[in-house]
Amino acid sequence: MKPALLVSQKVISEFGPRLNQILGSASQPLEMIALTKDLKIAPEQLASIAAAYYSRDVWEGTTKSALTPMAGAFWNIVDRAPGLKWLSVFSSGTDHQQYQNHLQRGVRLTTGAGAQAEPVATAAITGLLALARGLTEWIAAQRKGEWTPFSGKNIPPDLRGQTAVIVGTGHIGTCIARVLQAVGMKTIGIRRNVASAEHFDDMQPLAALDTLLPACDWLVLACPLTPETRGLIDARRLALLRPSAGLVNIARGEIVDELALTEALAAQRLRGAYLDVFTTEPLAKDSRLWQLPNVLISPHNAGASAGTYLRGVEIFLRNLDAYVNGRRLENEAAAN
Amino acid sequence: MKPALLVSQKVISEFGPRLNQILGSASQPLEMIALTKDLKIAPEQLASIAAAYYSRDVWEGTTKSALTPMAGAFWNIVDRAPGLKWLSVFSSGTDHQQYQNHLQRGVRLTTGAGAQAEPVATAAITGLLALARGLTEWIAAQRKGEWTPFSGKNIPPDLRGQTAVIVGTGHIGTCIARVLQAVGMKTIGIRRNVASAEHFDDMQPLAALDTLLPACDWLVLACPLTPETRGLIDARRLALLRPSAGLVNIARGEIVDELALTEALAAQRLRGAYLDVFTTEPLAKDSRLWQLPNVLISPHNAGASAGTYLRGVEIFLRNLDAYVNGRRLENEAAAN
Repeated sequence: MKPALLVSQKVISEFGPRLNQILGSASQPLEMIALTKDLKIAPEQLASIAAAYYSRDVWEGTTKSALTPMAGAFWNIVDRAPGLKWLSVFSSGTDHQQYQNHLQRGVRLTTGAGAQAEPVATAAITGLLALARGLTEWIAAQRKGEWTPFSGKNIPPDLRGQTAVIVGTGHIGTCIARVLQAVGMKTIGIRRNVASAEHFDDMQPLAALDTLLPACDWLVLACPLTPETRGLIDARRLALLRPSAGLVNIARGEIVDELALTEALAAQRLRGAYLDVFTTEPLAKDSRLWQLPNVLISPHNAGASAGTYLRGVEIFLRNLDAYVNGRRLENEAAAN
Repeated sequence: MKPALLVSQKVISEFGPRLNQILGSASQPLEMIALTKDLKIAPEQLASIAAAYYSRDVWEGTTKSALTPMAGAFWNIVDRAPGLKWLSVFSSGTDHQQYQNHLQRGVRLTTGAGAQAEPVATAAITGLLALARGLTEWIAAQRKGEWTPFSGKNIPPDLRGQTAVIVGTGHIGTCIARVLQAVGMKTIGIRRNVASAEHFDDMQPLAALDTLLPACDWLVLACPLTPETRGLIDARRLALLRPSAGLVNIARGEIVDELALTEALAAQRLRGAYLDVFTTEPLAKDSRLWQLPNVLISPHNAGASAGTYLRGVEIFLRNLDAYVNGRRLENEAAAN
C-alpha cells in the first residue's frame, strides 16, 4: 500500500480541495485515511500510515484525565502505527507524554504554535485586568445585587507603572507584552536569549528570576513545560512575591506548585491568580481553588476562539505541502 | 474679609506645603477654609468664598440619589456662597446639575478631566474583554465547580479584526483605542472634528453612527453627557447592532435608553454589556440588569484607582496657581 496520512473526516470535508491539490502535486504523495471515532483499520492500512494530524477537532473535549472517543480512536491508531514518520499536532506545547513518546522513537513532531497565541494572550490579559481593576469584586457584589464602590484602602493601585514579569517570550508572551505595554505597564521577559525584543522593556535570563520577583506586580507564565520549567514556581519563589502581586498561568499547571499557590492565595499572601491550567485536569472537584474569591479559573480553555482551529489547519496544510515535497517543516520540535 | 478658598481638610493636611507655597506667592491671594463634614460657617466667611474645590475625597460615596455628609456640607456652603467665582471639581463630566447651576450663574468651572482617564479606560477594556473572551461564562461555571470548556458553536469569535466604535475621543476614548488596537481590533472614533487621530483607524462624525452600527462589534460610550448625546443610543439604534455585538458604557447612563437596552440584553439581541453608569444610581434594586448573565455591572466605579485622587489634586493645584496669578485655567468648561 502507498504511504498514508491520517486526518479527521471534518478536516477532509472542510479542506478537501486544498488537500487534494497539495497531495496531487506532491513529489512523495500520500493517500488519505479519514479518521472517525468508529474507524476500524486493517493491519496493512495501519502499516501504511506515514503521517497523522492531531487536529483541534480530534482533541476537543479531551482532558489530562480522559480522552474523548474521537481522541481515543486517534491515539489507538497512531500509537500502533509502525511506519509513522511525522506527527502534526494542533497544540503549542510538546510536553504531552504521547507526543514525547513518538519523538523518542524518532517520529518528527510539528506543533500548531502561533495558531492560538492571540486568544491565549488575550485571555491572560483579561484575567490579569479582571483581578487588577476589581472586576472580581464587582461581579461578587453584582451577584448579591449590592452597589458597593471601592473606597479608601480598598481602591486598587494604578496599572500604569506596574511591572509584569513574563516567563516565556514566544508568540503568546510577546502578544501579552504588547497589550500590557499599551496599558502602561513595564514588561520584563524571561528567556535564554536575552537580546532585546519588541514589546519588552527588559529581557532577563531565568537565573535572574529570584531577583525580579520581589519587584514584580504580575508574574505571567507563558513558557513551555520542560525539565527546566517544571516546578519553577515553587513555595520559595511564591514567597518572594509581594502580597500585592498576582499570578497568571496560561502555560502548564506543572510549572507551579499548585498546593503552595493555593495556600498563598487562601492566606492572601498573593493578590490573586488567573489560572487556565492545573496539575490535574479537569481540576479536582475538591480543590480549594474553585471557591477562593481571588482566583479566576478557566477550564484549559484560554485558546478557545473561532479562528484557532482554522489557523491550526493552515499551519498543518503548509507543513503537509513541505512534507510531501521534501522541504523544511515549520514548528518542528526537538525531544525534551 | 479676604477672599477665600474652600478645600477639604484632607487635601490641606496632605498638600499643605504646596498650597501655602502657591498662595504665598500669589498676586491675588486667597485664604483657606478647611471643609469638614461638621463645618459651621459664619455669614461673612460664606461671603468671602471665591473659590471651592470639590475633590474626590469630598465626593466619595455620593451617588445620584444621595449625598454623603461630607458632600452635603460642601454643597450646602457652595450653593449659598454669593461671591463664588471658580468651582474646581474632580470629575471629568460637567453634566451634573449642581455644576450646571453654577455655570449658568457665571461661576467658572474646571474639571479633573484626564485624572481618571486611564483607570476608566482600563475598566472599559476589562469589561469588553471579559465579555469577548468568555470570562463571564467561566466565572459562572467556576461558581458551580464545573469544568465546561467552550466547544463548537459556543466558541467565541476572534478579537483580531473586530471593530470597536468609540463615541467620544477624549482622554478616555483615546486610551481605550490604544489598547484595543494593541489587541488587534479596528477602532473607529466618533467626534465632531473628523481629522485623523493616533490610535483610531478611522474618525467619523456623529451623523455617521447609524451607518456604522450594523458593522460594529463593540459600541463603546466614552463621551460627555450633553443635549446632543442624551438618549443617543435609543431602541432604534440598539436594533441596528448585530446580536453578536456588545456595549460598553463608562460615560453616563442617560446616553442609553436603559429599558430598551435591558430588553435587548434579556432577549439576547445583544451579546452583552459592561455598564458602569445608569439612569438611576445606585442602580435600582429591582432592575433586571443585576441578574442578566450577559451583563457586567460596576457601581459608577470605573475610575477607582489609587492615583486618581492624586492626579486630580495635581490638576487643581496647577489651576490654583494659574487662578491666583490671573493665568489661563486648564479643563475649563463651557455651559451645555
